[in-house]
Amino acid sequence: MNSPTDMTSHHRHLEHAREQVVELLSRQALELELLARSSDNRNQDVVAQLTARQHQAALAQRLHRFHPADIAFALESLAPDAREMAWDLVRPERRGAVLLELSDSLRRSLVGSMEPSEISAVVRTLDSDDIADLVSSLPDDLRQAVLEHVDRADQAEVRAVLSFPEDSVGAMMDLDYVSVREDATLEAVHRLLRRKKPLPAHTNELIVVDRNNTLRGVLPLDKLLFEEPELEVSAVMLTQPTYFFTDDRDRDAVDAFEKYDLISAPVLNLHRQVVGRITVDTVIDEINERAQAESLRQVGLSEEDEDLFAPPVQSARKRWPWVALNLLTAFISSRVIDAFEPVIAQLVALATLMPIVASIGGNTGNQTMALVIRGLALNQLGPKQLRTMLLRELAIAGINGAVWGAALGAVTFALYQDWKLACVIGGAMLLELLLAATAGLLIPVVLQRFGRDPIMGSSVMLTATTDSMGFFIFLGLAALVLVHH
Amino acid sequence: MNSPTDMTSHHRHLEHAREQVVELLSRQALELELLARSSDNRNQDVVAQLTARQHQAALAQRLHRFHPADIAFALESLAPDAREMAWDLVRPERRGAVLLELSDSLRRSLVGSMEPSEISAVVRTLDSDDIADLVSSLPDDLRQAVLEHVDRADQAEVRAVLSFPEDSVGAMMDLDYVSVREDATLEAVHRLLRRKKPLPAHTNELIVVDRNNTLRGVLPLDKLLFEEPELEVSAVMLTQPTYFFTDDRDRDAVDAFEKYDLISAPVLNLHRQVVGRITVDTVIDEINERAQAESLRQVGLSEEDEDLFAPPVQSARKRWPWVALNLLTAFISSRVIDAFEPVIAQLVALATLMPIVASIGGNTGNQTMALVIRGLALNQLGPKQLRTMLLRELAIAGINGAVWGAALGAVTFALYQDWKLACVIGGAMLLELLLAATAGLLIPVVLQRFGRDPIMGSSVMLTATTDSMGFFIFLGLAALVLVHH
Repeated sequence: MNSPTDMTSHHRHLEHAREQVVELLSRQALELELLARSSDNRNQDVVAQLTARQHQAALAQRLHRFHPADIAFALESLAPDAREMAWDLVRPERRGAVLLELSDSLRRSLVGSMEPSEISAVVRTLDSDDIADLVSSLPDDLRQAVLEHVDRADQAEVRAVLSFPEDSVGAMMDLDYVSVREDATLEAVHRLLRRKKPLPAHTNELIVVDRNNTLRGVLPLDKLLFEEPELEVSAVMLTQPTYFFTDDRDRDAVDAFEKYDLISAPVLNLHRQVVGRITVDTVIDEINERAQAESLRQVGLSEEDEDLFAPPVQSARKRWPWVALNLLTAFISSRVIDAFEPVIAQLVALATLMPIVASIGGNTGNQTMALVIRGLALNQLGPKQLRTMLLRELAIAGINGAVWGAALGAVTFALYQDWKLACVIGGAMLLELLLAATAGLLIPVVLQRFGRDPIMGSSVMLTATTDSMGFFIFLGLAALVLVHH
Repeated sequence: MNSPTDMTSHHRHLEHAREQVVELLSRQALELELLARSSDNRNQDVVAQLTARQHQAALAQRLHRFHPADIAFALESLAPDAREMAWDLVRPERRGAVLLELSDSLRRSLVGSMEPSEISAVVRTLDSDDIADLVSSLPDDLRQAVLEHVDRADQAEVRAVLSFPEDSVGAMMDLDYVSVREDATLEAVHRLLRRKKPLPAHTNELIVVDRNNTLRGVLPLDKLLFEEPELEVSAVMLTQPTYFFTDDRDRDAVDAFEKYDLISAPVLNLHRQVVGRITVDTVIDEINERAQAESLRQVGLSEEDEDLFAPPVQSARKRWPWVALNLLTAFISSRVIDAFEPVIAQLVALATLMPIVASIGGNTGNQTMALVIRGLALNQLGPKQLRTMLLRELAIAGINGAVWGAALGAVTFALYQDWKLACVIGGAMLLELLLAATAGLLIPVVLQRFGRDPIMGSSVMLTATTDSMGFFIFLGLAALVLVHH
């Protein structure tokens, strides 16, 4: 047994160990490459290879002591060649667990490079819901290659889980749970569990079902510890547990876990029969994935672009649709300016000042939009709240537009000694802020109303609106007030 | 007992009930207001008041059946007057739990409006770590007002928790845990628990300590169920549990919970004595708070701005620092253009085209920045990875700049029949994209290197850079190539 004073704070120790391994693996990969280049010198080669092999054995041992999540972390941090070497060092029986922790893109590339025999070794170590999880992110051909190696019995289960839509509770459920009958005594349950041990991870309660496998309630483990053994399950179980249907949306389950502080909850099919459960670790993964994806989606990127080491050409092409959209909208703004070319020709200062209005509009609109997107995510914006929020954002924009528009006008007057120009820019700023607030609120709301993702590319669309309208408002006002026709 | 076929899917049912109550409360508040206005007609008044009181009693009953998190949700969705009325309907013994679920700003305003007697009633229902949680978000005067009502014994504990920095494990820990001695038999533990029942929420394992309360290991509940009662705790406990120190950073704890799928973990003081534990529900709250705050921080907003119903003047003033910064940077961009005024006067088309370059730069830079911020949050960017990433983003920018710069040049030629102008805009786009990628990577990294929040206002700073540099590159190239001196 370990003495407790030998323990170091787990995560600090770990962070250090992880960095060391990443460092060692990178160096090792470099050495192997140098070795390959200097392969003309035969003698040296043999010695060097022996040393390399010793190093590798030591590294493999180190990796073996890591949690799969930490191995995954190390793999993500490594450049492709070191990554391949490290993957070879991971023992076959642990590869499944590591694959589950990896990002989609890296998982795809590693599975793609595996031999059929390796795949079958990996699949043997996983539960059917984990296999479903693993293959759900793979392209069709790889998916087939993996599924071929799954046992007949498991295959039915895997295909069942795969048949649920990606954003449903069914797709995130765990098939591994313990159920007991309501007319059993606690003593009988106790005996059953002793035979089944260990319990599946995150089992804080047993699911109570009737003869037809219909949900009757749940039996928390501590009841089993505390209540008299001769009592029946039905006498001590909780009869109103939170539960979900396979076709519920995954975000509803996540919300319920957050709110009611759940550890696990049963999942039912449409006949109200228990088919699985959701556990809190899956929920945490889901929350994280969602949060990470959000900031990327706002600028038009997807999770696909995740791997820092994917070839740049591939990543560049993935960004093309948004660059194209952006170019198009920028061109529209440019045409707006073009319409006012004669005005600008009369007063070049307008060209100098017009980006100020557009820029402030973009940033203010982004503030409103961040608040709206959060409100939508929290389910806090009904029609009534939206109206309140619009009025509120307009009021804020009005106040800021008046105050800072006046300031901007004053500075402009100081620079150009032209009070008409000062009024135009101040007025344009006020109008632009009002418009930016409206656009910042409407863009995500309208996207969602039409069943689209309210976040995807919202930032690009907002900038397009605030830019073109900013130029239009400023130059339009200038044409009205300043220019002699 | 409930028949399971009577159960409806919990969360769906709930969402509906919640909407109904919000609806009813809003209507009720409106009626009360109308009542107050028509108070000249005495007779009608009495009848109406009676009806109102009946409605309120019914509403109070409904609210009572809600989970505190759902009451909190309803309160957040209500306008101030309806909110006050609803708060009055919440029973005193449940107010503490509801307050804990509210946003900081609403909690502050509700506690601020409470009588001393109400505060003391609330405090009586809470554990000392929950009290610490509650008061940590209150301003100093309110904090004192609440702490006065805490028992002497609890007060020491509350002050101990409050003494930890906000982002430390100590501040997020739970003081309520069960510890056992390693030399006890399982049977003795069992007896102890029966006396202590029910167990604190989220107790999946007992903490094993020695005579000095030093951590020795943890005893999962299922071991207690499965192992022979005459065995000693030390024989079956896990000796290498994940644990934390009170002064560890909270994000390290969150990371460990995510990775190792923990339910709870012991927290030690610097003498390695157990002082509390962290549970998964706190971790989930922390993850959520962080994710929500992130998108707001990027546009320079804080959690403070959370309440949709706070007075607009107040919110407007909170946004002033960023409006001012934004105005300043926009002014700098404007001065860049001003420097090229003679060039623009010679060729007004330049004014038309210059925003295209700046706009594309802003959006592309934001993409790079989103990837970097995510990498930083995941701890994935060491110096080596940063270099790889910079080279990769520059390569992507180079490819996109060449391809789309050529496209933009072609369109420009088609519009203006000026091949020099086409080359200038194409070249400017390539340079701007390279610069935007560099800025998108450097801004968050440098902010973090200097110990600042890498997200706060990063978006405003990036736009400032890409705008002014975009104008400079485009107009500078134009001055070199196009203009006759």
